[in-house]
Amino acid sequence: MDLLNVCIIGSGNWATTIARNVGINVVNSQFMENKVNMYVYEEIIDGRKLTDIINTTHINVKYMPDYVLPSNVVAYDDVVTTARDADIIVFAIPPTFVSSCCKTLLGKIKPMAHAVSLIKGFERNDDGQILLISHLIMRQLKIPCSVLVGCNLAHEIAHNNFAEGTIGCRDQKYLRILSDLFKSETFRVVVTDDADCVEICATLRNIIAFGAGLADGLDFNENTKAGIIRRGFLETLQFVDVFYPGSRLATFFESCGISDLVTSCYANRNRRLAEAFVKTGRPLSELEHVLIPGHEPLGPVTSELINLMLKKKGLEEKFPLFTAIYRICTGAYPLSRLVETLRFAREDM
Amino acid sequence: MDLLNVCIIGSGNWATTIARNVGINVVNSQFMENKVNMYVYEEIIDGRKLTDIINTTHINVKYMPDYVLPSNVVAYDDVVTTARDADIIVFAIPPTFVSSCCKTLLGKIKPMAHAVSLIKGFERNDDGQILLISHLIMRQLKIPCSVLVGCNLAHEIAHNNFAEGTIGCRDQKYLRILSDLFKSETFRVVVTDDADCVEICATLRNIIAFGAGLADGLDFNENTKAGIIRRGFLETLQFVDVFYPGSRLATFFESCGISDLVTSCYANRNRRLAEAFVKTGRPLSELEHVLIPGHEPLGPVTSELINLMLKKKGLEEKFPLFTAIYRICTGAYPLSRLVETLRFAREDM
Repeated sequence: MDLLNVCIIGSGNWATTIARNVGINVVNSQFMENKVNMYVYEEIIDGRKLTDIINTTHINVKYMPDYVLPSNVVAYDDVVTTARDADIIVFAIPPTFVSSCCKTLLGKIKPMAHAVSLIKGFERNDDGQILLISHLIMRQLKIPCSVLVGCNLAHEIAHNNFAEGTIGCRDQKYLRILSDLFKSETFRVVVTDDADCVEICATLRNIIAFGAGLADGLDFNENTKAGIIRRGFLETLQFVDVFYPGSRLATFFESCGISDLVTSCYANRNRRLAEAFVKTGRPLSELEHVLIPGHEPLGPVTSELINLMLKKKGLEEKFPLFTAIYRICTGAYPLSRLVETLRFAREDM
Repeated sequence: MDLLNVCIIGSGNWATTIARNVGINVVNSQFMENKVNMYVYEEIIDGRKLTDIINTTHINVKYMPDYVLPSNVVAYDDVVTTARDADIIVFAIPPTFVSSCCKTLLGKIKPMAHAVSLIKGFERNDDGQILLISHLIMRQLKIPCSVLVGCNLAHEIAHNNFAEGTIGCRDQKYLRILSDLFKSETFRVVVTDDADCVEICATLRNIIAFGAGLADGLDFNENTKAGIIRRGFLETLQFVDVFYPGSRLATFFESCGISDLVTSCYANRNRRLAEAFVKTGRPLSELEHVLIPGHEPLGPVTSELINLMLKKKGLEEKFPLFTAIYRICTGAYPLSRLVETLRFAREDM
């Protein structure tokens, strides 16, 4: 049997974190090639190319300066070179770059390759249709795309703190392979075939975390925040039911569901952004860049895309929390509508 | 139609908080008698009886000194006088006093009265059988007992911050009456008939919050805490399924489920107790009194009772988190077993 080759497209902190797990795991596997290519967006740092720095020092000085990569992870500045021999292509780039990256790769990768997206969010394709990132990859590259989610806090995994991830796998024969590829002693991975639900949970929680941050900014209490988490969870269930029917309720109890939602609402950058939005009164467009250099927080963007999907089906009123958060972002609603929404939301959705 | 009379047994902060809502709501209802009796455990404060202070100043100086009760809430130092004419008897006393209180009331209340328990926890009855508090009340008083849960944080409701509660109602004709009795503009109440599940969620979350506090004490990260919350939620589902079958999954998405669990794990006294247990290394028996004068935190006690129930059915291994928390409390397990439990817990329960 031919050994499977794995590459990673991306070099942010989540890409780098997972590259270490992958680099270690392929060496310990009898089914995998040892070398792991990693596509790095080239930058010059202190007069040196970032790819050179990574390939000599094994440290991604840009995103994870305290973290040593295994030497079998090799950086490339060209995405086609990185991916052309890969059987498993792991995508970990910002959502807005996915479409152009796929266009570059189309026809230049193995036709039987399997993609894995670590990217949260929805994107519009060229027709203006709103798609989950894994669906965008599948349509553009014509290969199946699984997802790995569950890392709010890349640095926690990087520092070998306990964390859980969920893989939504789109090909039965990769169930075990993907689990073995990403896990570590401290990063517990559970695989399910309910891939859409896994990805939607990971995406919608950024809206809910933004809502939790609004509550924090308004100095609301723990019960209010819990109300937002609960309502957001219910609207996520309902959203999946409307737009991606056939998902299983059990998936919401995996780490991609309840755990990531809770973590996001207490410790994620969307939460911080929303808190700053309330406390400073400055527009989101200014704050997004102030708060998270190089990382776009996805809450407001996602809430806009979700709102387009809901509006098209005449469902805005059936998703009062998502709608209120979107309208607060645009300024159409005052902040006070957040609690009003919780008070008057109907239970029987 | 005769007007319904309501009384409240108890005068702690949760009893006092809810007494205000009840006092206001009965006045606005055409079905309820205006006067609300409240049983107060008599104490002498600065030379005056607490009942006298409450009845003249309308302030429960002992538990809620900043909070004015409506004047139609009248304090009594005798539980039979308080309850004998009541159609709805609201219990809000510590779990350990429930049995003796019921013995005092037996035969002295209206035979058609309806009880409502605001008390979390399990108790042993005289045969050593472990019962939910509402079941203990039902057995002893021979009347139905509904439950109201959802108040982690009585002071937040007292200060008119938004909060949610869940009523588990055991008599169809009380569904609306109880909701109207307890709600306020800022305290949203949802009624379900899945009373056992409501009460179990409220009870088991104290164990999980204790586990979350152990993680905080060990300076674990957000992902670890989220793992405890998730695992705790799963074991709660499973516990209900084993011991109180027939409950509905939807009940876990009410505030009694997900909201109260999250709030507890971030802001409850069991969490604080566990954190102090780890940080100080002192035995729980010492800390319980240091931390919460007059209030027993229920996490360790509940974990012991739950362990007895599990052991009897040979199910300790099927509930690894509850079992680990119990054994950490007793000293049988080192603290390190907490994360080990998360790492190795089976997903397919």
